[in-house]
Amino acid sequence: MTHFRVWAPYAERVRVVFERGNEDLRAAVGGCFVGDVDPIKPGVDYKLALDEGEPLPDPRSAFQPQGVDGPSRVVDHAAFAWTETRRPELDLAHAILYELHIGTFSPAGTFDGAIERLDALVALGVDTVEVMPVAEFSGSRGWGYDGVFLYAPQSNYGGPDGFKRFVNACHEKGLCVVLDVVYNHLGPSGNHLPAFGPYFTDRYKTPWGGAFNLDGPDSDAVRDFICDNALMWFRDYHVDGLRLDAVHAIVDTSARPILEELADRTLALSNELGRPLVLIAESDLNDPRIIHPRSAGGFGIHAQWTDDFHHALHAVLTDERQGYYSDFGGFEPLATAFADAYVYSGQHSNYRRRVHGRPPGNLPSASFVVFSQNHDQVGNRAHGERTSALLNAGLLEVAAALVLTSPFVPLLFQGEEWGASSPFLYFTDHSDEALGRAVREGRAREFGSPDFRSSDVPDPQARDTFERSKLDWTERDQPEHARLLDWYKTLIRLRRSRPELAAVGKARARLRWDDTQRWLVVERDGLRIACNLGNETVEVPLESKNAEVLATSSDQSSIAAGSLMVAPESVVIYGLG
Amino acid sequence: MTHFRVWAPYAERVRVVFERGNEDLRAAVGGCFVGDVDPIKPGVDYKLALDEGEPLPDPRSAFQPQGVDGPSRVVDHAAFAWTETRRPELDLAHAILYELHIGTFSPAGTFDGAIERLDALVALGVDTVEVMPVAEFSGSRGWGYDGVFLYAPQSNYGGPDGFKRFVNACHEKGLCVVLDVVYNHLGPSGNHLPAFGPYFTDRYKTPWGGAFNLDGPDSDAVRDFICDNALMWFRDYHVDGLRLDAVHAIVDTSARPILEELADRTLALSNELGRPLVLIAESDLNDPRIIHPRSAGGFGIHAQWTDDFHHALHAVLTDERQGYYSDFGGFEPLATAFADAYVYSGQHSNYRRRVHGRPPGNLPSASFVVFSQNHDQVGNRAHGERTSALLNAGLLEVAAALVLTSPFVPLLFQGEEWGASSPFLYFTDHSDEALGRAVREGRAREFGSPDFRSSDVPDPQARDTFERSKLDWTERDQPEHARLLDWYKTLIRLRRSRPELAAVGKARARLRWDDTQRWLVVERDGLRIACNLGNETVEVPLESKNAEVLATSSDQSSIAAGSLMVAPESVVIYGLG
Repeated sequence: MTHFRVWAPYAERVRVVFERGNEDLRAAVGGCFVGDVDPIKPGVDYKLALDEGEPLPDPRSAFQPQGVDGPSRVVDHAAFAWTETRRPELDLAHAILYELHIGTFSPAGTFDGAIERLDALVALGVDTVEVMPVAEFSGSRGWGYDGVFLYAPQSNYGGPDGFKRFVNACHEKGLCVVLDVVYNHLGPSGNHLPAFGPYFTDRYKTPWGGAFNLDGPDSDAVRDFICDNALMWFRDYHVDGLRLDAVHAIVDTSARPILEELADRTLALSNELGRPLVLIAESDLNDPRIIHPRSAGGFGIHAQWTDDFHHALHAVLTDERQGYYSDFGGFEPLATAFADAYVYSGQHSNYRRRVHGRPPGNLPSASFVVFSQNHDQVGNRAHGERTSALLNAGLLEVAAALVLTSPFVPLLFQGEEWGASSPFLYFTDHSDEALGRAVREGRAREFGSPDFRSSDVPDPQARDTFERSKLDWTERDQPEHARLLDWYKTLIRLRRSRPELAAVGKARARLRWDDTQRWLVVERDGLRIACNLGNETVEVPLESKNAEVLATSSDQSSIAAGSLMVAPESVVIYGLG
Repeated sequence: MTHFRVWAPYAERVRVVFERGNEDLRAAVGGCFVGDVDPIKPGVDYKLALDEGEPLPDPRSAFQPQGVDGPSRVVDHAAFAWTETRRPELDLAHAILYELHIGTFSPAGTFDGAIERLDALVALGVDTVEVMPVAEFSGSRGWGYDGVFLYAPQSNYGGPDGFKRFVNACHEKGLCVVLDVVYNHLGPSGNHLPAFGPYFTDRYKTPWGGAFNLDGPDSDAVRDFICDNALMWFRDYHVDGLRLDAVHAIVDTSARPILEELADRTLALSNELGRPLVLIAESDLNDPRIIHPRSAGGFGIHAQWTDDFHHALHAVLTDERQGYYSDFGGFEPLATAFADAYVYSGQHSNYRRRVHGRPPGNLPSASFVVFSQNHDQVGNRAHGERTSALLNAGLLEVAAALVLTSPFVPLLFQGEEWGASSPFLYFTDHSDEALGRAVREGRAREFGSPDFRSSDVPDPQARDTFERSKLDWTERDQPEHARLLDWYKTLIRLRRSRPELAAVGKARARLRWDDTQRWLVVERDGLRIACNLGNETVEVPLESKNAEVLATSSDQSSIAAGSLMVAPESVVIYGLG
């Protein structure tokens, strides 16, 4: 017996179409059609037919075994045999996140392939994997932000059972799972939702496609579609947190914005399940209202990605000034990022050509996720260059130290820990010819070539572009990579062992620096992180005669006779003693 | 010497074009062009020429003596001879607002014409006039919501000097002035702003035209355009408050929304000037964030129009159920309105086909402006029927009593106080043929006629439609009108003399009622307002033997021997003694 429930407010009749025949659903309240179909078992495929229309896959399909245009498959979530014996609890104040993309993280490019690499993450010392979107998208290669079946884990990754096995394996190894979910648009290919109801609106635009109808007529069901989806990942897939993609592209003028409703419903489920469920927003707004608690008039989202920290760090390390990096550069913005998380909190931004942000106020340190790389910052470059393609080994070690000793929640991007040589390129696999061409041309144009053929920007549709983006795990053993990996492990061990370094309470960090000699010191309680960004050894003033070295990235650095010498492009971490 | 400042971020060259010749402005920061032109005196006309384009009127024109396409005129605000000897301070907790439309309030349809009628408002007892928009709009007849020169009072109303004389006269008579301003769109005719810069965006839509660019590139100058305008009315025209039209159609996703910035800047000017400056939003969102104080994460707007109160009252008095009235009806919603201001605070609305609103929380009573009529509720009916065309004299008296004894801030609509027989129709005067036809057809279609010619909906473009909407002041002396006017005066006197009736603190009212007998009692501290909506005398239970009648709308009602008898369709106001 399987229960079907389809929201189709404009339809007169809805049928479930099986191979063996059709079953009519009955009209229920709120524009829904419902029915219990017997003896349909999990594993059976079906489509839905509205009135006299062609059968379509189910908007709430749990599985699309043949992709975005194929039939939906009945899934019984209760049937999965969870074997997790322990279930770690996600605590952002002590978390270190690791962002990975299922298709490129392992050679197999599947959930099961990823499981095989989890031991490496345990050895690295991170405690939470953040999985790029897995909602079924068009084709077999993609970042995941063009998903069109929000309830169905990507079929060629391993589908629902594959993702459950992955979460189960993570938990068994003590790793929490955060899943990236996209509620600001649906992908350009395979979106059958408009046939079912007013899921989208033309009142607002997103850069990537129609905006969800969150505040117009019949929007309650659309809001439920989103909130129910979030809760499904928590309840049926046991994930510990969600990363909400690009919330700045979610426009909702209603009195109770969808992000607030989502936070409320997540909190209610958290109370019901008796374990923390975490929401992290990707927000480009520098608007603390998103992460302020409900009591302060905020939405109650727990944390946000903090691009300003990245940009300030990237600009100081690379000296790049193109695009949004034009708003950054020098030590001053980096010091602001360490002190306030936002660099722009109401100042004019030249890049945005407007005032940007507002002061974040006295928020917990764990409200801010920081990184020196992520899928966007790498993948949105023409050639998908990781920081390891831009900086030498010493500065990579400096970048790692600044993220992993920051007062905020560090996030690493897959392969960053060994300075992976593979790029992370933009790749797609649209079967629609015209769309594929548009993506090719759009990508080339974005980086200045009017024509794709004359551009050296890799073709997103080419399989090779995807294959090149896969991590090469064999290179980890090569000396330079192994050395960087060791440094990451050292830093993570240090962060875990020194309570001064956690993102606890309202911790912030003070920076002092010397522009000419290009050194900086991060002050975290009694700990100091001295970084030399220049190519000459510098003497950094010590506040204490009892200073004691805890870690160095170069054996050329030393504390001796009350004097701290930091070798070029290296880090010394010391206690004041 | 006159200072010119023009924001034209895409222009290479900007000239001021006078009859006597051109003056080049010089490029300054922020995309502005500036210059001091000598010896230009106030009263001189000019246009602005960008690069090689045709000369255009100034977006910040202070006066458009020849209408929306004519030249702008230099105005020296400091030159006006204010003679106001007293300057009343607007205190919403004790205010009674009176909404008027300059074009139809007086026979002359001008500011000076309106001045002649102010004594009638003083005699009525209201203390604040709320003036429908006066920003220059296309043609000579219009409601004002299609203004295109936000800084220029309508020329055929009397222009800048006329409006100053009006405010001056109001203040001299002890009346405060609230001005209706439209920051959600510009009218469809005579909008030259897009030639100057990116004032508008296509990222969002309004029902009436392009949305202001408040959060995109170059939006700072657009935000200043709006905020400076608001401050100009306070500073140069001495107005005491602004009514912000349709803030629900202002979309701004930036971290510091424009309404909050406007409230901040208004507060700063209020402190500078040492007198209260009031902001009242028209909001359709039932979102208390707009009126919550800054300390509670709100925007700090002082009050909002409260349509739910109107709809609940209108539905119970008229039994109308069409359109948005379908969400109301019966005493229960009215009781909710008296208790909470919002009737919809998170419930599903059938009319809106979605959940609507959120609980307003414990806001001051003076946060809510209430009415039984206003320009929209009257004028958006096909035939512009006032309540006096829908209800008999007794129920008009009930409506007046419920508004004027409510715990919120009462607002009357011009002529309501004597049950004016003139309608308030929708009228326009677009010189553009095609636009005029579109408005005619649109209006006819709105009320069910595909063709304007076969519709009985008055033609908005016809002069007669405007003329019919003018108040007929002579009818005030006719017995039935005079009787209603007396009742309004009685109610206003009562509200002023009984502190229990003010909108002070967090006052609310409890209602009790009898559905069958169709009576209700409003309880405000020790005062009671008993209303009989039925057509038979009813006995209303008394809580006190010492009850004492304060006012009755019918001499057939009585309190005798501990029993309150309320005549059909009438009101008894009594104290518990």
